Amino acid sequence: MKVYLNGDYVERERAWISVDDRGFIFGDGVYEVTRAVRGRLFEGERHLQRLERGLRGLGITPPAEVQEQRLVSISECLLRDNGLTNGEALVYLQITRGAAPRTHHFPPADTPTTVFLSASAFTPPHELRDRGATAITLPDIRWARCDLKTVNLLPNTMAKQQAVEAGVTEAIFVRDSAVTEGSSTNVFGVVDGELRTYPACNYILGGITRDVVLELAAECDIPVRATPIFSSELDQVSELFLTSTTNDVMPVVEVDGRRIGTGAPGPVAQRLYRAFSERFGRVGR
Amino acid sequence: MKVYLNGDYVERERAWISVDDRGFIFGDGVYEVTRAVRGRLFEGERHLQRLERGLRGLGITPPAEVQEQRLVSISECLLRDNGLTNGEALVYLQITRGAAPRTHHFPPADTPTTVFLSASAFTPPHELRDRGATAITLPDIRWARCDLKTVNLLPNTMAKQQAVEAGVTEAIFVRDSAVTEGSSTNVFGVVDGELRTYPACNYILGGITRDVVLELAAECDIPVRATPIFSSELDQVSELFLTSTTNDVMPVVEVDGRRIGTGAPGPVAQRLYRAFSERFGRVGR
Repeated sequence: MKVYLNGDYVERERAWISVDDRGFIFGDGVYEVTRAVRGRLFEGERHLQRLERGLRGLGITPPAEVQEQRLVSISECLLRDNGLTNGEALVYLQITRGAAPRTHHFPPADTPTTVFLSASAFTPPHELRDRGATAITLPDIRWARCDLKTVNLLPNTMAKQQAVEAGVTEAIFVRDSAVTEGSSTNVFGVVDGELRTYPACNYILGGITRDVVLELAAECDIPVRATPIFSSELDQVSELFLTSTTNDVMPVVEVDGRRIGTGAPGPVAQRLYRAFSERFGRVGR
Repeated sequence: MKVYLNGDYVERERAWISVDDRGFIFGDGVYEVTRAVRGRLFEGERHLQRLERGLRGLGITPPAEVQEQRLVSISECLLRDNGLTNGEALVYLQITRGAAPRTHHFPPADTPTTVFLSASAFTPPHELRDRGATAITLPDIRWARCDLKTVNLLPNTMAKQQAVEAGVTEAIFVRDSAVTEGSSTNVFGVVDGELRTYPACNYILGGITRDVVLELAAECDIPVRATPIFSSELDQVSELFLTSTTNDVMPVVEVDGRRIGTGAPGPVAQRLYRAFSERFGRVGR
């Protein structure tokens, strides 16, 4: 498989970065994971907008690939050259502040950023969706800028590992008694017929799929409120579901060993997933 | 300059890690910076104990270099081979969970960790110490496991950058009205003749120099209490100082543009720095 690294298309096994890369030393960078189908990106523009917002948030000068709007063509080139244009795929994109002698403060402004993209085949988790996912709740111990999609992901990886060890799909974070989001997903719930999700702010990563689902809910006349589900309400939600680039809409049927709603994927999640699939199916057509 | 990377001593310019290294992708690793003088490590044993505690905290299996207690000899070899045995130097050490296909959860247990060490010449900031450092305060937006010395350092780098842009030495974090620590230092203050510093817990990185200074304070019969200085008390402290591997004991004479104490390095900091220097001077003798 070929990947893109700082201007070159190289074999993944030969894609090396310096030990002095600030991505390695400080986690000083941002990333995106974008879904592709038939060689075309799904919501590529929104992913790039979020990426640029992240670069601004970190004070990283956008590299030429961003300034010259070449990230989509690089992504499509990777999909094509790696034979990923027939089915579904994921494009991973990471930009760091580059390699420089280690100082906490930023290196000289002319330090070249590191730009890395890769593509890989992807199979959506349809079986899990039919059955419904499971989750545990964990204290949200992350920093207060979860709205930046940075590679400072240690709390997320540790939470996901706890989920795996508990035999469930996802770890759902709770901060100040409110469900914020999952370790790599946003969380929605249906309470008294109303769809709720944590408001877009510094405590969650505003997912692209979350935005799409909010739009689809409006189109489907599902009442929505951007307000948290409190952990005390998890017993009362009729439905709970996750959204993310790799999960689309994923019903959750059990949290902390307790059944959610009827214990089966609910009608709101199913309806939104159908609407999502329709929009997704239009990509590249 | 030669560095150590996964069993090999290589030129720094040829020390490469995989783009799939979890250090690069997730900031999934721990690090240490250790002071060396005349080719010998200062408090090397404590740094290694903290490193091992960090590995346990992250669930990273200690690599052979740790299990076989080879990190000191590798460090000393780097100091020797790079001609750093005459003066002062720093040894940087980083261990990540290794390279693996990207998943939030941990990779298979047999995934080799990445072990990186480097050494560089170091000149202590004596002039700054004579004059006294300056600082700004910033909200402590970091996660709730600051006690782990991980490479998820983005908030620290962003805070230090703000300090640089404000023309001061350090950014001091304030959480819930309490001074926790600096972006790469611990903070001590003298209030009513008593030396105070934030207690060792999940909200600060328990510095090795902090521990040494606490020991020296006891030896010097300076009353100490591990209790926070509140930001409202910064007007009343007679002295404030930072401790870290690169700063030793560094008086702070101004915070947020306001003078601390007399505006000059204070007697407690000076006394502790003298005691520190004596202990430091015994290394390798």
